[in-house]
Amino acid sequence: MKRKSAPSDPPPGSSIDALFRPRSVAVVGASRRRHSIGREVLRNLVEGEFQGPVFPVNAKAEVVQSMKAYARVSDIEDPVDLAVVAVPRQHVLAVAKDCARKGVKGLVVITAGFREAGREGAEREEALKKTAAKAGMRVIGPNCMGIVNTADDVRLNASFAAVKPLPGRVSFATQSGALGEAILADARELGVGISMFASIGNLVDVTASDLVEAFGNDPRTDVILLYLESFGEPRRFTQIARELARKKPIVVVKSGRSTAGARAAASHTGSLVGMDIAAESLLEQCGVLRARSVAEMFTMAKAFANQPVPAGDRVAIVTNAGGPGILATDACVGHGLELAEFSARTTKRLAAALPEGAAAQNPADLIADADANRFSRALAAVGSDAGVDAILAVFVSPVTTDAPAVARAIAESAESSGKTTLACFMGKEKDDEGVAILREAGVPVYRFPEEAAAALSALCRYRRFRDRPRGKDVRFEVDVRRARRAIQRARRAGRTMLVGEDVGEILAAYGIPTAPSIVATDVGQALEFAKEVGYPVVLKAESEKFAHKTDVDGVRVGLKNGDEVFEAYEDLRKRLGRRDRNLKLRVQKQIKGEAEVILGAATDPQFGPLLLFGLGGVHVEVLRDVAVRVHPISDIDAAEMVRAIKGYPLLAGARGKRPVDVEFLEETLLRLSQMIADLEEVAELDLNPLIVGEDRTTAAVVDARLRLS
Amino acid sequence: MKRKSAPSDPPPGSSIDALFRPRSVAVVGASRRRHSIGREVLRNLVEGEFQGPVFPVNAKAEVVQSMKAYARVSDIEDPVDLAVVAVPRQHVLAVAKDCARKGVKGLVVITAGFREAGREGAEREEALKKTAAKAGMRVIGPNCMGIVNTADDVRLNASFAAVKPLPGRVSFATQSGALGEAILADARELGVGISMFASIGNLVDVTASDLVEAFGNDPRTDVILLYLESFGEPRRFTQIARELARKKPIVVVKSGRSTAGARAAASHTGSLVGMDIAAESLLEQCGVLRARSVAEMFTMAKAFANQPVPAGDRVAIVTNAGGPGILATDACVGHGLELAEFSARTTKRLAAALPEGAAAQNPADLIADADANRFSRALAAVGSDAGVDAILAVFVSPVTTDAPAVARAIAESAESSGKTTLACFMGKEKDDEGVAILREAGVPVYRFPEEAAAALSALCRYRRFRDRPRGKDVRFEVDVRRARRAIQRARRAGRTMLVGEDVGEILAAYGIPTAPSIVATDVGQALEFAKEVGYPVVLKAESEKFAHKTDVDGVRVGLKNGDEVFEAYEDLRKRLGRRDRNLKLRVQKQIKGEAEVILGAATDPQFGPLLLFGLGGVHVEVLRDVAVRVHPISDIDAAEMVRAIKGYPLLAGARGKRPVDVEFLEETLLRLSQMIADLEEVAELDLNPLIVGEDRTTAAVVDARLRLS
Repeated sequence: MKRKSAPSDPPPGSSIDALFRPRSVAVVGASRRRHSIGREVLRNLVEGEFQGPVFPVNAKAEVVQSMKAYARVSDIEDPVDLAVVAVPRQHVLAVAKDCARKGVKGLVVITAGFREAGREGAEREEALKKTAAKAGMRVIGPNCMGIVNTADDVRLNASFAAVKPLPGRVSFATQSGALGEAILADARELGVGISMFASIGNLVDVTASDLVEAFGNDPRTDVILLYLESFGEPRRFTQIARELARKKPIVVVKSGRSTAGARAAASHTGSLVGMDIAAESLLEQCGVLRARSVAEMFTMAKAFANQPVPAGDRVAIVTNAGGPGILATDACVGHGLELAEFSARTTKRLAAALPEGAAAQNPADLIADADANRFSRALAAVGSDAGVDAILAVFVSPVTTDAPAVARAIAESAESSGKTTLACFMGKEKDDEGVAILREAGVPVYRFPEEAAAALSALCRYRRFRDRPRGKDVRFEVDVRRARRAIQRARRAGRTMLVGEDVGEILAAYGIPTAPSIVATDVGQALEFAKEVGYPVVLKAESEKFAHKTDVDGVRVGLKNGDEVFEAYEDLRKRLGRRDRNLKLRVQKQIKGEAEVILGAATDPQFGPLLLFGLGGVHVEVLRDVAVRVHPISDIDAAEMVRAIKGYPLLAGARGKRPVDVEFLEETLLRLSQMIADLEEVAELDLNPLIVGEDRTTAAVVDARLRLS
Repeated sequence: MKRKSAPSDPPPGSSIDALFRPRSVAVVGASRRRHSIGREVLRNLVEGEFQGPVFPVNAKAEVVQSMKAYARVSDIEDPVDLAVVAVPRQHVLAVAKDCARKGVKGLVVITAGFREAGREGAEREEALKKTAAKAGMRVIGPNCMGIVNTADDVRLNASFAAVKPLPGRVSFATQSGALGEAILADARELGVGISMFASIGNLVDVTASDLVEAFGNDPRTDVILLYLESFGEPRRFTQIARELARKKPIVVVKSGRSTAGARAAASHTGSLVGMDIAAESLLEQCGVLRARSVAEMFTMAKAFANQPVPAGDRVAIVTNAGGPGILATDACVGHGLELAEFSARTTKRLAAALPEGAAAQNPADLIADADANRFSRALAAVGSDAGVDAILAVFVSPVTTDAPAVARAIAESAESSGKTTLACFMGKEKDDEGVAILREAGVPVYRFPEEAAAALSALCRYRRFRDRPRGKDVRFEVDVRRARRAIQRARRAGRTMLVGEDVGEILAAYGIPTAPSIVATDVGQALEFAKEVGYPVVLKAESEKFAHKTDVDGVRVGLKNGDEVFEAYEDLRKRLGRRDRNLKLRVQKQIKGEAEVILGAATDPQFGPLLLFGLGGVHVEVLRDVAVRVHPISDIDAAEMVRAIKGYPLLAGARGKRPVDVEFLEETLLRLSQMIADLEEVAELDLNPLIVGEDRTTAAVVDARLRLS
């Protein structure tokens, strides 16, 4: 065991440094028993060559692992920055209090049996939280597997992980300790080096957001990986992640997609917004990359940790085997990447370097007997082509070829071209030397071409995130007081589901046009109104008995004259009046437009308000073609929302249709967002549909529902 | 080197046995040079312990690898069943002729430089093909890496693969030799054993279909894997695969998705049918599982080779770690599997076996300190629950637990429950012993829970394929001669793109109704026709100048009286007559229905005729929501097509709409299929739209185009 001087920088202002950059560590519960958690932590600290002193704390033993042990933390003569707690759960609180007395700055509580174990555990957790907060101690855990910081001047492995992490440029926080263990093992095996690691457990104090911030400020971290089961504090996460994602890629595996289940809700918007769509939208808005699996997270991390983000999407594939070249092409195109068009010069240089039968276009097939020299020449040609942003080198090792030499050729090309270079070494069993050479040179190596393509596409996706303009927070002149008055009126009348005039008032206050309408108590009134606003008109049955009017054939559109209004009025009254004595019949000016769209807002228990956009009718209801964003949205978000649906071409003017006023739709989404910000009592809102044409002056909401919380 | 008696069964009737079950093998081009291809083949044969004699053939050496060498195959005194040819390309034909003289029954031609290398190579290939066919020799290759049969009484490794395949129950054919090499290496590393393997090269004789058939008949093969770049003979493949897929799972990686590109075509159907959608449909129709990547193919193969297909989709997850349990749940639900609901008895037994804080529901979380005993009891409880079809055991190895003991508990549960069991051993580095125990016991082990879930979903998908009813070939009474006459008339008049009456005739002959219409040469004729069929009518501009009438606002619907017809006629005539002097104006009875659908047929260069179904308008054109099947289709295919589109709820009666006559749509698809079978000259056909309501008697095609080849 080597001992060097203590970590150079003492914990400064940022209290999270007490956890990740402690000058000294106490291990409370450092047992003499082999394979006990405390003993493993102690071993990891010592074998990991922690740069400060480590103090075993054990109530019953005087020596643990040949080190002097203390009965309590407060017995230690020297200062203690960090205490790792691995004692039985009933002793944790006493230990925390003792640590507070001693002036310990950070706790990593490994012990389980807190909130996750029922009411009693939750009480224990609350007490721990209070003790730590009072003493100003930062806490990771409880119920976690520890933390790691591989910085040379710290070398902290305060975990009971069985695998020693390699130092590197990836930082990782996980809400599952078990997954943390597995991931450290995999990282090592895949050659992914770790800068900082934290298993965050029950989040009594330090959250995922705190860690993202800490990793973001860590100059040794190039990539941030997260495994999350919940966001904890979505708004703070959003703020932090949005800024940081422009500096460093953040890759998240977010689980719990299926467990949430759809909430029961009265409106379309409410029922469509499941928890996962909110998580998905939040990440998208922040520019955080979501990996669909842990394996995919590693696939991405290897690329981000080692290679520059390519300037564009144009990929050159250089291969010595046709089949894998085609697989790589398929996968690249499938991920939305472009196959680079080689310049005439490149094609010429390639042709000169290749034998007959080889392909001098993209993918460049150097054929099976390609040696390192042929790879070198081909890569040099492709690497100097200004139309190439990234290079994917695919190599299948024939018995006749010197694989390590090919690996060196690829590594040299990556170095000299400066272009993003990824390698796929297939059938790697015998190519371990080649793989090692590439890893050493910082060229990520994949086993299958599809993985390499997936990694490359993640780099390009990140570039698009990073480079998209920062959105602006747009505010319009609105009449908040008018909206509030309308809400108060409805509340006083005992209404919480607002329709008709109630909603119209609120929308008007926010500059969102609604189609003129009245509730006609008799057919005469209906005819009079129709004459006033002009034909054609629409007649609608309003009832609390049926949520969707079309289900009961309760809407008559295109009524062109008095006779038609009369006939429709009588039909609805007779047919539906039987089903609801309080049936109301609304006459409304018929709005002409090119498209019907739905705009909505709903409140997610975890993420707060969400905004929804989609095309009306079957598009939302049957095809589920919607775009969702987490409130608040910027102008960029609004523009993206409108364009995110599959049916967008219908708004842009597909097949002889006139394009609608898309800017108006964006503005209306922003006005909705402003309404949600101003009026906290709005729990759900459906504008379904808003009819819109070429010109905003004719656009109007023809049906709306608003639920107060 | 061991030598046993020659393979017991001599090549019988089935000539492919000459390749995979030879009694003796000659290696032509067996060089003295190390790492030469011929030398590697010889070494693999000998080290693989081929059960018959191996004869090196080398024009220049008398001894190769301590074995007597022959100058020519015909110099060998003993009979030769199989010759592996690895001589320079210019000598291949002479060798083949010599083999024919000798009475060799099968050739594996490894040498490259044939069709893939240009015109001269193609000629060489043609000559080889003829020579072999004349002599009745079956040929694999040229341009391949060889074949393998691990059957104990054969032990044939006639390849130059660097990796020795493990014997096992997976057979594999690959169109890319390089991928074959990589895949054999991966198979070995992943513990996937091989029964038969073939790198099929240029397919001069033996095709993928032949191999699927051979693998299907091989009693040692449980799973068939294919890597294909093209199908070669899609119809034969379909026939063979359809039958075999009911007996053994077939998993395909089909590449070349992106390289094909969309064909230029005049009709919707034609332009929508890209090569990949055809491949996708063909595989789906045959019940062949498509893997999206080579890695996914292995994920599936490991499960198929070792575990039974589960009787249902209900999965029990048993885990010692919450996070991975959630990931497994997410992935299972994401793949369409169900989380089993445990019976009261199971829940009780689980609760008894688990400590406080553990979860006795599904996923069953045994928490981190679960030992082998707790796993055993939980797995026994879950394994005997009649509501559980498959078990996914997820284990993260804490330092404190005996991982091999847990592995044994899982293996025993798999054995005793008889239920499909898959395991995920995370952070496997230190658990290699556990992984080995599970593999030995035939329980596939995955690294990540998502992979295990993907494998399980493949098993369930296969069960659905296997168990779906066999479709029937349905034929209707039609008037083929009437259709042929209509085609002849059009041909004589020089028309190949048929519209209007031409198509109407053909459709009528096949019992497909079209809306009554005429081309009105003046407005009087239009008015007369409208009066005859009854209002409302539709007026349409027909012109070769514009393919899509709606793009030029050339369709007027809902004309309710003479005035409206007059006005519309004059407008179209004036506005569009300028653009096309040969403009025709068609008056058509307006068909009332609930939905507009598109039915179509197009010819794919590789797959032959394809059939298409979709909802009309934006559904096909903008949202690309279509179902495609390869001709011919069965009644089951037709039923699946109609239901395969996302918009199907609109046909089944979503949101207050009346359901349409779906059976009529199925029948019309089958009638189209029959037409395609009868009339080979139909290259493309669009029925766009067919309007259909509740009752077939009112349904009719209102626009159709048919292109003759």
